[in-house]
Amino acid sequence: MSITRRTFTTGAMVAGAALAQAGAVAATPPRTRRISVEECFSTKEIDAARAKLGGYSIQAPQANRERLHVRLEDIGAGRIAQMDADGVAVQILSLCAPGVQDFPADRARGLATDANDQMVEAIRRHPTRYAGLATLVPQDVAFSVAEIVRAKALGLNGTIINSHTNGEYLDDPKFWPIFEALEAHDLPLYIHPREPSPQMAGPLKVPGFAVGWGYAVETGTHVIRMLGSGMFDRFREVQIVIGHMGEGVVFYLPRIDNRYTFEMDLSGRPRLARMPGEYFRDHFHVTTSGMNYWPQLRMSIDVIGIDRLMFAADYPMEVEGDAVAAIDAAPMTASAKAKLYHGNAERVFRIQTG
Amino acid sequence: MSITRRTFTTGAMVAGAALAQAGAVAATPPRTRRISVEECFSTKEIDAARAKLGGYSIQAPQANRERLHVRLEDIGAGRIAQMDADGVAVQILSLCAPGVQDFPADRARGLATDANDQMVEAIRRHPTRYAGLATLVPQDVAFSVAEIVRAKALGLNGTIINSHTNGEYLDDPKFWPIFEALEAHDLPLYIHPREPSPQMAGPLKVPGFAVGWGYAVETGTHVIRMLGSGMFDRFREVQIVIGHMGEGVVFYLPRIDNRYTFEMDLSGRPRLARMPGEYFRDHFHVTTSGMNYWPQLRMSIDVIGIDRLMFAADYPMEVEGDAVAAIDAAPMTASAKAKLYHGNAERVFRIQTG
Repeated sequence: MSITRRTFTTGAMVAGAALAQAGAVAATPPRTRRISVEECFSTKEIDAARAKLGGYSIQAPQANRERLHVRLEDIGAGRIAQMDADGVAVQILSLCAPGVQDFPADRARGLATDANDQMVEAIRRHPTRYAGLATLVPQDVAFSVAEIVRAKALGLNGTIINSHTNGEYLDDPKFWPIFEALEAHDLPLYIHPREPSPQMAGPLKVPGFAVGWGYAVETGTHVIRMLGSGMFDRFREVQIVIGHMGEGVVFYLPRIDNRYTFEMDLSGRPRLARMPGEYFRDHFHVTTSGMNYWPQLRMSIDVIGIDRLMFAADYPMEVEGDAVAAIDAAPMTASAKAKLYHGNAERVFRIQTG
Repeated sequence: MSITRRTFTTGAMVAGAALAQAGAVAATPPRTRRISVEECFSTKEIDAARAKLGGYSIQAPQANRERLHVRLEDIGAGRIAQMDADGVAVQILSLCAPGVQDFPADRARGLATDANDQMVEAIRRHPTRYAGLATLVPQDVAFSVAEIVRAKALGLNGTIINSHTNGEYLDDPKFWPIFEALEAHDLPLYIHPREPSPQMAGPLKVPGFAVGWGYAVETGTHVIRMLGSGMFDRFREVQIVIGHMGEGVVFYLPRIDNRYTFEMDLSGRPRLARMPGEYFRDHFHVTTSGMNYWPQLRMSIDVIGIDRLMFAADYPMEVEGDAVAAIDAAPMTASAKAKLYHGNAERVFRIQTG
C-alpha cells in the first residue's frame, strides 16, 4: 500500500506555464471567485542575504531550492498564469517565513521595506489579482508601528509576523505597540508558522516532520500564549489570522476551555476575564492552508463557525490546484463555500468584492 | 456570554456515593456495555513519596488536592458506585501521570511494583468491573521488561508509560527492549501525557493551559518521534494506544504525510520505508479521553476509522457521566458505537466480552 505522492516540481504548474507561454494570462477571471490568503513570495535580495546566514531551516540541495525559488520570486505574469490554470482569482501575497525575523534589526528593516515595496508594485501592476500583507520587523517594534502606518497608506490588506522572533512571543508586552497600531489602523495580523523557538526546538527536530508537526506546535503555542496573557482584554478589536486549519488550537478548543477551568479550580489562581475559547472566537480567523481535508474543515466549521474560516492554498509550497479541487469537492452549501472562498476574506482583508 | 463550568468537586459523584452508602454496588451491569480505558488511580505511598519530591506539576492548595486524591486512591467500592451511576461497566485502571517516572530508579521500582500489586488486588476483588495496565519504569529498562513478563502472568491487559522519562523519548533505541517484550508477550502500551520535557517546557508554561495544550504537545511530539524513527519497521506488531483524540496527530495526519513527502523531496534525504500515516494506522489506537466532542470524534473516525477508536472517560480528572452522556448522544450507528464503547477495547486489551 502506498500513498500517492505529489511534489512541487510536477502537477498543475505545467498547465499554467503553458498558458503563460501562449499569452493567455489576461484570460477571463474564473467563475467561482476564489481568494487565497496565505500565498508566499520571496525576493532575490532576501534569498541572497539568507544564503549568507546559512540558508533556510530545511536544508535542500541547491537545484531543488532553486526550482522552488523560481516560483517564489515570481509575483508577475507567471504566477498569474498559474492562478488562471488553478482557478484562483486573487492571491493575498506575503513574504515567505521566517520573513526578515532571522536578520539583525538594521538589515531586517531594509529587507522588509524593499520586500513590501516590491509587493506593492506587483499589486499596482495587477490590482485585480494580487493583494498583500506587509511584513513586519518585530525585533524593531517602533519600525513595525511605522510600517503599519505606511501599509495602511499604501492600501495593503494586513500584516504578517512569522511566529517567534529570537525566541520571543507576541504575548510579551514589549510587542504590544504593534497591536495598538493594528487596532488604530484597522489592519489584521497573520501569524504564520516558522521553525520552533530555540527553547522548544530540541525534541521537535525530526527529519521530515519539521513543517507538518513542528511548525504547528510552534504557532499553536504562540496562540495559546496570547490567549493566556489576557492581552485580548486590552486589545478588544484586533483580528488575528492563523493558517493550517488552526495550528491545532481549533481541534482542542473545547478541551482547552475544559482543562482551563479544571486547572484554575484546582490551583485557585485568578482567572482570565473570559474563557480561552471566547477570546479565540472573537479574535481569530483560520485558513485552510495545507489542510484541504473535508473532515478537518467540517470539524472546524462546527467548532468556530464558517464566518471565521478562509481559503488558502499556501502556494508555491503546496499544489494550488489540489487545494481548489479539494474545496470545490467539499459538500458545503453554496453560501458556506462563498464565505470560505471569498466573502470572509473580502471582509477581513478589505478586498473589493469581485 | 459565559460557558458553563463543571468542576471535579461536583456532579454525578454525589449520586454514586449515595448508591454506595445504600449498598447498591452490586447492581446489575448497565445495559450498554461501556469500557472506559484511561482511568486513573494513585496510591497513598506514591502520593506521600511525591509530596517529598515537591508535589505534582500543577500546584494546588492542599484542600483541593486532597479532595481529588480521595477519588484517585479509591479503587474499591466507591469508584464502582460512581461507575454504576455513570453507566460504566469496566474501568481499565492505570496509575496517574507521571506514574513513577519522576522518581530515582530504585525508588521507582518499589513504588511501581506496589502500585501494580494494589491494582491487581483490586481487579481480583472486582474482576468484572476492573481491568488494568501495568506501570513501567523506563528509567530501568531491564526492570520494565521483567514487569511486562509479570504483568502478562498476572493477567493484566497492557502497560502504560507517561511520555518522556527524564527528557528522553521511546524512539531512543535504549528503550527498545521494552517493545521487544511487549511484542513477545502480546501486550499493548498506553502512552499517557505528562508535562513537557525540560527541552521544550519553556514556552509551554502558560498557567491554565498546561494540560489542555502542553500535555498534547508533549505526547504528540513523542508519537511523531516514534513515527520518524523507523522503529515500526522493526516492531511490526506492537500496538500503541494514545488518548485525547490522538494528541493532535490524528487531526494533522494527512498534512504530516503531505509535508513529509515535500521535505524529503526537497532535501533528497532517505525516506522511511512507509509513509508516517501508514505506520500510525497500523500501530496506534486512539481514545476519546477528555475529548467528548462529536465534531472531533467524527473527524477521527473519518481519518483513522472506527476500528482504531475507543471510549475513555479520564476519571476522576474528568466528569465520567458527562463523557458517557456525550458519546451516548453522538449520532453514530449502533455498530460503530458498540466498537467504540467495548468491541475495540475487548480486542486490544483482551477483555472478556460482557
